[in-house]
Amino acid sequence: MARIGIIGSGGRMGRAIADVLAASDEHACAGGVDRDTVLTDLAGHADALADFSAPDALVANLAAAREARTPILIGTTGLTGEHHAAIEEAAAVIPVIQTGNTSLGVTLLAHLVGEAAARLGPDWDVEILEMHHRMKVDAPSGTALLLGEAAARGRGVELGDKRESGRDGHTGRRGEGAIGFAALRGGTVAGEHSVIFAGEQERLVLSHCAESRAIFARGAVRGTAWLIGKPPGRYTMEDVLGLPSLRA
Amino acid sequence: MARIGIIGSGGRMGRAIADVLAASDEHACAGGVDRDTVLTDLAGHADALADFSAPDALVANLAAAREARTPILIGTTGLTGEHHAAIEEAAAVIPVIQTGNTSLGVTLLAHLVGEAAARLGPDWDVEILEMHHRMKVDAPSGTALLLGEAAARGRGVELGDKRESGRDGHTGRRGEGAIGFAALRGGTVAGEHSVIFAGEQERLVLSHCAESRAIFARGAVRGTAWLIGKPPGRYTMEDVLGLPSLRA
Amino acid sequence: MARIGIIGSGGRMGRAIADVLAASDEHACAGGVDRDTVLTDLAGHADALADFSAPDALVANLAAAREARTPILIGTTGLTGEHHAAIEEAAAVIPVIQTGNTSLGVTLLAHLVGEAAARLGPDWDVEILEMHHRMKVDAPSGTALLLGEAAARGRGVELGDKRESGRDGHTGRRGEGAIGFAALRGGTVAGEHSVIFAGEQERLVLSHCAESRAIFARGAVRGTAWLIGKPPGRYTMEDVLGLPSLRA
Amino acid sequence: MARIGIIGSGGRMGRAIADVLAASDEHACAGGVDRDTVLTDLAGHADALADFSAPDALVANLAAAREARTPILIGTTGLTGEHHAAIEEAAAVIPVIQTGNTSLGVTLLAHLVGEAAARLGPDWDVEILEMHHRMKVDAPSGTALLLGEAAARGRGVELGDKRESGRDGHTGRRGEGAIGFAALRGGTVAGEHSVIFAGEQERLVLSHCAESRAIFARGAVRGTAWLIGKPPGRYTMEDVLGLPSLRA
Repeated sequence: MARIGIIGSGGRMGRAIADVLAASDEHACAGGVDRDTVLTDLAGHADALADFSAPDALVANLAAAREARTPILIGTTGLTGEHHAAIEEAAAVIPVIQTGNTSLGVTLLAHLVGEAAARLGPDWDVEILEMHHRMKVDAPSGTALLLGEAAARGRGVELGDKRESGRDGHTGRRGEGAIGFAALRGGTVAGEHSVIFAGEQERLVLSHCAESRAIFARGAVRGTAWLIGKPPGRYTMEDVLGLPSLRA
Repeated sequence: MARIGIIGSGGRMGRAIADVLAASDEHACAGGVDRDTVLTDLAGHADALADFSAPDALVANLAAAREARTPILIGTTGLTGEHHAAIEEAAAVIPVIQTGNTSLGVTLLAHLVGEAAARLGPDWDVEILEMHHRMKVDAPSGTALLLGEAAARGRGVELGDKRESGRDGHTGRRGEGAIGFAALRGGTVAGEHSVIFAGEQERLVLSHCAESRAIFARGAVRGTAWLIGKPPGRYTMEDVLGLPSLRA
Repeated sequence: MARIGIIGSGGRMGRAIADVLAASDEHACAGGVDRDTVLTDLAGHADALADFSAPDALVANLAAAREARTPILIGTTGLTGEHHAAIEEAAAVIPVIQTGNTSLGVTLLAHLVGEAAARLGPDWDVEILEMHHRMKVDAPSGTALLLGEAAARGRGVELGDKRESGRDGHTGRRGEGAIGFAALRGGTVAGEHSVIFAGEQERLVLSHCAESRAIFARGAVRGTAWLIGKPPGRYTMEDVLGLPSLRA
Repeated sequence: MARIGIIGSGGRMGRAIADVLAASDEHACAGGVDRDTVLTDLAGHADALADFSAPDALVANLAAAREARTPILIGTTGLTGEHHAAIEEAAAVIPVIQTGNTSLGVTLLAHLVGEAAARLGPDWDVEILEMHHRMKVDAPSGTALLLGEAAARGRGVELGDKRESGRDGHTGRRGEGAIGFAALRGGTVAGEHSVIFAGEQERLVLSHCAESRAIFARGAVRGTAWLIGKPPGRYTMEDVLGLPSLRA
């Protein structure tokens, strides 16, 4: 049984990961730390670490992981260039995943979207639709943007040059090669994303539906456990699924 | 066989109506007029008239229909208050339908949306999604707005006060009682509309999908033929379906 | 605060109802009984009772409710004619709802399906699709059949005469006026139902999606509380939503 | 401009291909033959041939194509082992595609389904849903079976061992590793297919929607034209899209 240590155990993701570990037959919880507890001990006891704490704790977390030679998955968001440099340094010594999205389903979807965009070419219009609960404060969702980037990469264009979002009023006809976004908000929807390729009288639609936010914790556990025994280096969620990495 | 006369027979809808009549076992074409042909003759020969010409022809069209006591369905868009006054006058003498949407499926959908909105109350968030072909130049579609008005009426609010469209960037959480709109554009999609009622862990979704734009011509023919033999007055597409009229 | 008593408090629905009541601002739990506890006390203390126990307990449960003049909602399934007769007798003295489906969303959907079927007529083919988790052992689901009955009633036909399910192999063309059923099974899906009306080049689709099975407990609480203060009689979930009752 | 010759020009697909060629800027029609016209001439004049005639004409068609060194796409269905042997022989001399499905969207969908099935593994239940017009006489559709085979191949199993279709009545829980099929029939639906991967609280859905049957003619033209200038050999629609061939 792989023993996973949780950094940021008091946060929403930290607690969700603890729930997944408690219910698991394959993985166990090696303990958790929040702001004021001893990190070095945990890094020493755990087989791998999942860090969902805060950006300003990242350098100390990486140092503890390096010291103990313990692999680490970093799901903290809001990282700067400095943080990424620290991650690169750590990856010379231990295996590391840093990711903004730990769902395996979404990871696979992004891969399929890139593949479809590459094969179909720009004659098939790409539209990305997402729905989330009524409390969400921004649009499009981070996952929708990640899917848009996968489509742009598949076509060999920059998303920033092609993004068309928030259509309202007299928009004019659809932009040549545009990648469109639309956002629905309501109820308690955990997260649904569809990427539509609309061609001449036919459409291909690739969708993901999260029934609960627990899937992100489940994917985080799987990604963290996957790191155990890997050589030092920087890995991605694509690697966890055995997909060709999108970094290249 | 009811004989339908087409005013504006050279336009896109006029030609589509001619196609429907040519293929029909129940209805026949009594002839068509465009800008420069004789309208009075057609009004005299036809059992009912379908007018999809232009606003500035409306007064003459109504005069010819009144003179011949021939029912008329008006699908011309871009009407002003003056046009509506002329329609009211004509409706004292002949049966008239004036409508911006001749699809029976959409008419029924709008009715069901109003009913659902009234029963579910404002705790269920209403979102309206539409997809159309890449050439469409405005958003939301006229049909989406018609559905939004049906939802607003069901809740006893004004759509103008509650409309939330074109979400993009930092939007803040969803507005209390908002009616949201999102628009997808791509390919050759004839028209798809979904009205989503998103409640606490459950959703009701009412949708319409047009496989081709011919459905609008088909509904126009059915509405025009339905007027034959009716007493003078102003009717709606709801009346054609036997639904309680939304005018009341 | 309405105090709801739970009969069958140890069962899956009984526990789900207790969870809903614990989280509610409007309703409270008046206590629960399971096989071996004192029912008469609970009937006396509660403002209304929700019975999700077992058919062979029903007669005693109704007697206790009548004795205490306490309204009761019965969600127990597998009832016989004898049970229904006992319910009718009780309904002469207290207000009663008996239902196999306590979701308000599904109740409304069934109403809208009946309305659409009545308006569209038999030229629009009716298909009912449902998806449930991989453990479900029968098909179509009870809710799918309830929706099929609503469609049949709307058309004035018997579902038994028109049902077409389990298509596989050489089926021949679709039966005249058939009501079709299809069942998907997989994963952890709580329950999704779509009723498709497929006409000439257009479709109307009315759907319900349950994000979790908690919605049935929430609807049961709302239905039970709604009974408080009503005159004796037999009511339905349609009545709770203010819909014209389907019994008539 | 590539000049395409149509064999079986009087059939439904032959006429649809002629329509596509008439509207095309890139390809032209080199002529068509039906039962009683001269095939050798057409094979000599055309840059490539599209054969949608009948199985018993195949051997003569292949002979004419070989004689003239003209590439050929064969869309005729109902072929036997003898026909496939004749195709292999011809493919030693000229480039040949033989396929039961000429839609590029479906071809890509099948590829993505195989990829997803391989990555997700058997814990994600596969369900295949299709909807077609009311006149279709068999279920599941040929395309649904093709998608099921792509999923089975991705998992390394035989579809015949895992197929679960026509669920109705007491089915028991879903079979371990089953690939399920469900068929909807109604209206004028040209063809819609969804492959659902249902995992623990999340789903991936890959869908294709044909707005009209013209897409099969369009794909046939593109596949036929693609053969021009290729070395002799047997190719697939996957090759036309640049996908790794599924033959391997």
